[in-house]
Amino acid sequence: MDGFWAVVPAGGAGTRLWPLSRAGSPKFLHDLTGSGRTLLEQTHDRLAPLAGDRFLVVTGRPHEEAVRRQLPAGTEVLAEPSPRDSMAAIGLAAARLERRAAETGEDVVMGSFAADHVITDADAFLDTVRHAARAAREDWLVTIGIEPTFASSAFGYVEQGDPLPGLEQAREVRAFVEKPSVPVAEEYLATGRYRWNAGMFVVRPSVLLDLLAAEASAFAATLRRIAAEPRSLDALWPTLPRIAIDHAVAEPAAAAGRVATVPGGFGWDDVGDFDSLAGLVGEAADCTVLGDRGAVVAHQATGLVVPGSGRVVAVVGLDDVVVVDTPDALLVTTRDRAQDVKAVVAALRDRGRDDLT
Amino acid sequence: MDGFWAVVPAGGAGTRLWPLSRAGSPKFLHDLTGSGRTLLEQTHDRLAPLAGDRFLVVTGRPHEEAVRRQLPAGTEVLAEPSPRDSMAAIGLAAARLERRAAETGEDVVMGSFAADHVITDADAFLDTVRHAARAAREDWLVTIGIEPTFASSAFGYVEQGDPLPGLEQAREVRAFVEKPSVPVAEEYLATGRYRWNAGMFVVRPSVLLDLLAAEASAFAATLRRIAAEPRSLDALWPTLPRIAIDHAVAEPAAAAGRVATVPGGFGWDDVGDFDSLAGLVGEAADCTVLGDRGAVVAHQATGLVVPGSGRVVAVVGLDDVVVVDTPDALLVTTRDRAQDVKAVVAALRDRGRDDLT
Repeated sequence: MDGFWAVVPAGGAGTRLWPLSRAGSPKFLHDLTGSGRTLLEQTHDRLAPLAGDRFLVVTGRPHEEAVRRQLPAGTEVLAEPSPRDSMAAIGLAAARLERRAAETGEDVVMGSFAADHVITDADAFLDTVRHAARAAREDWLVTIGIEPTFASSAFGYVEQGDPLPGLEQAREVRAFVEKPSVPVAEEYLATGRYRWNAGMFVVRPSVLLDLLAAEASAFAATLRRIAAEPRSLDALWPTLPRIAIDHAVAEPAAAAGRVATVPGGFGWDDVGDFDSLAGLVGEAADCTVLGDRGAVVAHQATGLVVPGSGRVVAVVGLDDVVVVDTPDALLVTTRDRAQDVKAVVAALRDRGRDDLT
Repeated sequence: MDGFWAVVPAGGAGTRLWPLSRAGSPKFLHDLTGSGRTLLEQTHDRLAPLAGDRFLVVTGRPHEEAVRRQLPAGTEVLAEPSPRDSMAAIGLAAARLERRAAETGEDVVMGSFAADHVITDADAFLDTVRHAARAAREDWLVTIGIEPTFASSAFGYVEQGDPLPGLEQAREVRAFVEKPSVPVAEEYLATGRYRWNAGMFVVRPSVLLDLLAAEASAFAATLRRIAAEPRSLDALWPTLPRIAIDHAVAEPAAAAGRVATVPGGFGWDDVGDFDSLAGLVGEAADCTVLGDRGAVVAHQATGLVVPGSGRVVAVVGLDDVVVVDTPDALLVTTRDRAQDVKAVVAALRDRGRDDLT
């Protein structure tokens, strides 16, 4: 698709996927689903039919090297001097692409997609992105609204409004709403108007920066200055606000009637924790092994076992258990409690065991 | 106590304590309770006030070396060429001691105690053994009847009869009964007549062998022949029946009115599985760590964690869980299902992984 750039912010440690995911080796660098490709590689593979080699990753300096190793030579990688949340990361990419568009005369549309999500129907995904790009060329900030499969309290929602005439599938966005309680999420689902906000934005770089400028002019100006003078990055980066793109741009732009959404039904999962991972790779009634099946003895047990240290892992008489075995750390929990794994990471940091987190 | 010999059959792999206990390194060789002493060493320590250096261990050839290393130099160790159950093991010790008594003129009484049980009140235990030895000198086969603390279906029971005149605490044994169902065990407890059979026998060696001879004359004769000609051990051992001492001698002798029992209330535990071990070393409401506490992060979890590989073990949101971490194998189960750990060992053998069992 001419002028389409895939922008992939690759950040976030994936604390709830400890001990597989670590600050020094976050989840996007891992083949979490046992597919033979890391989540970052899968993200690249998925977008390649639309973006070709127009692939731009924004990641932390500590991961730059690892990211480059996983992607084709010559892939553009922007390294953030420090983590400053998604607006700075995606804004930096937008400023870089805005400048490139000015230099080449290309009509650039960018699509921003997390590096660590899983999508099962790649064709349906590409189709959705094509629709979103069409609306983006009409200067909408377009978000992809994931068809909810249950009343989740773990995601923010997008409230859809009226269809946009002349733009197949696209609708105006009435509002972005924060993660609701489960009962509120159930009400959302009952209306049929709400979709999950997966943080997928398709937009012209200049539209995104202009929307940001309307809210925070210095922020947008600084991003544009970094793009014009890349050597200013280290000096200017620490001055940027830490804010998520949803709050910085998407919510105010929705209030101003500038956001559109296209529906996405392509088997999306953010692989947020081991419960999510277990649901992705296995059946509820099984004991799913991610890795060497020969290393696992499951006796009247169901759940997810990840043997990762070469040792035999035996599980007896537990349902929905999660056992993750790595050479230096072992996790035992349940699918139900998978969200609480972050407490382990916090406890280890309290103990000064940053080497393990 | 003059002439008192402690006989300690040290056999049995302790399959339900896998992966701590292995065929090549059975539970009696391990410091399972974190006391700083192995179960075998604890057994020696406990009996030393009565037996001094009159301590005779019967173990398998593969363990002879390890057993000798854990006991004072010069301790007598008989090595079985192959496992042939408890009658052969204890009978061999009896034949050895009968011969010794004949040679030295000592009035030998032997007390046979498993190498892998835990006793919390050593003084009360010694007191009980003294009472038992007095009855043994009157030519009774004396079994120590453990005061039951709950209606267990995991142990055999001894039914007590009338007190024996002139022998403080001792009563006749009406019968040995096999492991009952829990409801039957409850009836037993209600009568007040039943006690657990912990396989502790105190008896004159010649009385034991004569009782055996009454049931199986060739068996007793072969044991006596081995004692007379130790070099015949390898040739004769494989001809001995595989039978437990309870069936071979205790049950028929009880029927013949030759068995006495003295009550034992000294905090006995056979450390049969991880549930039993967890009860021994911790409180039900805690997450008990056997080993380096610093290696364990327990978040809203109770049960038993044995960190044994140097790795960090994190447990989140599980009650009564059992996690046993060793360098080559990991077990995850619950206290409730601890009996089923033997299924793991069976599965590993099926897979040809005898190296791990």
